[in-house]
Amino acid sequence: MPKRPLILVTNDDGITAPGIRTLINVMNSIGDVVVVAPDSPQSGMGHAITINETLYCKKEKINDGPQVEYSTSGTPADCVKLAVHELLDKKPDLCVSGINHGSNSSINVIYSGTMSAAIEAGMEGIPAIGFSLLDYNWDANFKPFKKYVKKICSTVLKRGMKKGVVLNVNFPNTENTKIKGIKICQQAEANWVEKFDKRQSPMGKDYYWLTGEFINYDKRKNTDEYALSKGFISIVPVQFDLTAHNYINELKNWKLND
Amino acid sequence: MPKRPLILVTNDDGITAPGIRTLINVMNSIGDVVVVAPDSPQSGMGHAITINETLYCKKEKINDGPQVEYSTSGTPADCVKLAVHELLDKKPDLCVSGINHGSNSSINVIYSGTMSAAIEAGMEGIPAIGFSLLDYNWDANFKPFKKYVKKICSTVLKRGMKKGVVLNVNFPNTENTKIKGIKICQQAEANWVEKFDKRQSPMGKDYYWLTGEFINYDKRKNTDEYALSKGFISIVPVQFDLTAHNYINELKNWKLND
Repeated sequence: MPKRPLILVTNDDGITAPGIRTLINVMNSIGDVVVVAPDSPQSGMGHAITINETLYCKKEKINDGPQVEYSTSGTPADCVKLAVHELLDKKPDLCVSGINHGSNSSINVIYSGTMSAAIEAGMEGIPAIGFSLLDYNWDANFKPFKKYVKKICSTVLKRGMKKGVVLNVNFPNTENTKIKGIKICQQAEANWVEKFDKRQSPMGKDYYWLTGEFINYDKRKNTDEYALSKGFISIVPVQFDLTAHNYINELKNWKLND
Repeated sequence: MPKRPLILVTNDDGITAPGIRTLINVMNSIGDVVVVAPDSPQSGMGHAITINETLYCKKEKINDGPQVEYSTSGTPADCVKLAVHELLDKKPDLCVSGINHGSNSSINVIYSGTMSAAIEAGMEGIPAIGFSLLDYNWDANFKPFKKYVKKICSTVLKRGMKKGVVLNVNFPNTENTKIKGIKICQQAEANWVEKFDKRQSPMGKDYYWLTGEFINYDKRKNTDEYALSKGFISIVPVQFDLTAHNYINELKNWKLND
């Protein structure tokens, strides 16, 4: 672990969100902190990047502390790109994203701006972790998780991370339970069953609101959903080589060139 | 294969793009086609979904043909959700996305709206394929690829697709070469090296344009980049379980609960 590691902090709820303020607070106790985060909420943005619009970036002073902060008009992935290739003089030793207000467990990782920032950093060869809390409330209680954030980040700084992998950490909603500990898990096979709420504008134009229900079909006990339901913190190692390697031979048997 | 399969067509370049018009044309020769596509280009949107805004949807008649068409104000992933949960009476037998104007090979799959639509369909249990051409030109020549699109789609309809997997098909830029055939590949380990073009607005505000250079570090001969560079069509099976299963035991050894 470097003596004073350089830590890049970002999120997708926006630079003023209580979740990122908690994360900045913990990171200040570990290293030198630079924050590059969206100026407004970006939830549901997936791994979007800003290619057809201009990107604004502004130095900020949100609250006291030694951290250096910038807000941007971009997505979480933009923030990491801008930090690494424009704002920072050297490559960060760690990138942390979050703490997200809401779950990024199971299939939610696919839609997650929080995790897209971590994956973007991972693609740059930076050890990276996304943190999320299973509580959408803006005033959710992040305090009980501070010691776990510190433990996980310190361990990653000490041990490094395998190339091509980042960590997806989810904290259980502990309003009524105690944190049981940390479990290393796999992504649960679950799904959103969408409903569209169809309405009509005052001008008579149809429009929809997307709503949905999260359904976990996965009965296995080694998944993130199971761990979280039992009051554990889940950590899933996430890779960005999306190749389904075990399906390649089957596809070759299709003999598409015949 | 059902006698007249129901085929959902979408893309991220927008419903009027020549790439999707080509795809619709081929699909009309295979089954009953419903098009649900964005009303404007959505490139670089990754797996974004519209959760804090309303979603408009309009019946369209872009050109002649038996297909039924809708444009939406949403992202490619929104289009699939809206089609499956609101517009269609039954689950499609196949979902195809594209043909994208530009590459979605290698790491580009992560940023790809085209592939996010295919993945969204895959999560709904629908066999799904994303098609892309390594040519950004709006007037690119899609014709040489029509027979390959038909062959690949017919084969998927006949054989079905493994749960949790979708196909990422990329066509080489054949301006100066002949198509050599189809190769089943893995995602190349490559990267974008970004440069930010910093400018100042007339009002004195700094802003950036994101530019970048794609660099393929991967020297292996079984990757999509290699196949495409040799004039082959690449097919990578893509999974949306992002768990790095081979890293779970290593993480357990970190003993984070001690």
